[in-house]
Amino acid sequence: MFRLHYAPGTISVAVAIALERTGTAYAPVLVDFAQAAQTTATYHQVNPKGRVPALETPQGILTETGALLEFVAPDLVPTDPFAAARMRELMCYLNGTMHPNHAHGARGNRWADDPQSLADMKRKVPQTMAASCAYLDQMLPDLPFGTGAFDVVSDAYLFVVLTWLNADGVDIATYPTLAAFQRQMDAHPAVKAVRAKGMLA
Amino acid sequence: MFRLHYAPGTISVAVAIALERTGTAYAPVLVDFAQAAQTTATYHQVNPKGRVPALETPQGILTETGALLEFVAPDLVPTDPFAAARMRELMCYLNGTMHPNHAHGARGNRWADDPQSLADMKRKVPQTMAASCAYLDQMLPDLPFGTGAFDVVSDAYLFVVLTWLNADGVDIATYPTLAAFQRQMDAHPAVKAVRAKGMLA
Repeated sequence: MFRLHYAPGTISVAVAIALERTGTAYAPVLVDFAQAAQTTATYHQVNPKGRVPALETPQGILTETGALLEFVAPDLVPTDPFAAARMRELMCYLNGTMHPNHAHGARGNRWADDPQSLADMKRKVPQTMAASCAYLDQMLPDLPFGTGAFDVVSDAYLFVVLTWLNADGVDIATYPTLAAFQRQMDAHPAVKAVRAKGMLA
Repeated sequence: MFRLHYAPGTISVAVAIALERTGTAYAPVLVDFAQAAQTTATYHQVNPKGRVPALETPQGILTETGALLEFVAPDLVPTDPFAAARMRELMCYLNGTMHPNHAHGARGNRWADDPQSLADMKRKVPQTMAASCAYLDQMLPDLPFGTGAFDVVSDAYLFVVLTWLNADGVDIATYPTLAAFQRQMDAHPAVKAVRAKGMLA
């Protein structure tokens, strides 16, 4: 059985949602960030990067949300190559731009050391996250597949990223497409299942 | 024919290398960063994110390196699902961790405003890029496919990222696996072709 190393509210929960969506059995393994468990030698044996998610599979350990989502839910990747590319484009954006924007709030010490720099980074998070939302709000209707019905695995990725907006000082109601997406996903049984397991913050 | 919007030395060149590798005809379109062309309304019609790469295809415009590489070179994606996942794991890491590490050198103003913060970020780049190299140097031999022979599309991605190390204050010779990878890729006809076209810095 898959073992999913996760922390509540983090992007790792997207993988749990995809596993629930496909009815795949998995054992959630809590990585307790409050105890800095991700920094221990024990966890580094699972994932030397000290991040979540990490998935133990019969073939070995896999990390990185975008890779894991396609691996656990291949039927939720569009068969049309252009549609698949647009789905990956969205996931790459979440991974390479929007998640780093968010991370400058609580994890600025990845990239700078001075407390003033960290405060400066933190101040800018509402602005960068709002810019990301504005982009996505325009992009989503233009995709060659529906979003929010959870027929594509990127829906799990986007859903979790959008759960961060409130703490990042962004009101999702400003972005009608994103707000509608989030309402739809919030009612999905797969999301309800991980919420019931306490995996969403 | 594909039109590839690119800037020399940036990650967009990975897509050009993949197009050369597969013998796909494309027209390179220079986005002149020296003239801030990526910030103009004209370019934002191509890519509202103001980044490269952007690829004009018969079906529409696609962005994001990871998505584009799989789209233009599907035969360089492993057919085995676990191997494909490990390749995507590598590409996700480059996109979500190593490229942002690098970007804090020249593009810190994405995430902070104070000149002192930007200087602080810049100071840490050699450290974060070295940490990324140490991780990759251990990861590469463990992948279920060869690297450097350019049988997988992630080779193009990794190659371009590693061309940044010198400017980022990291000596690739410290990492034997990465150094060997880079030598092999450097001699590949696809890399030679983009170099001859002036696309590598």
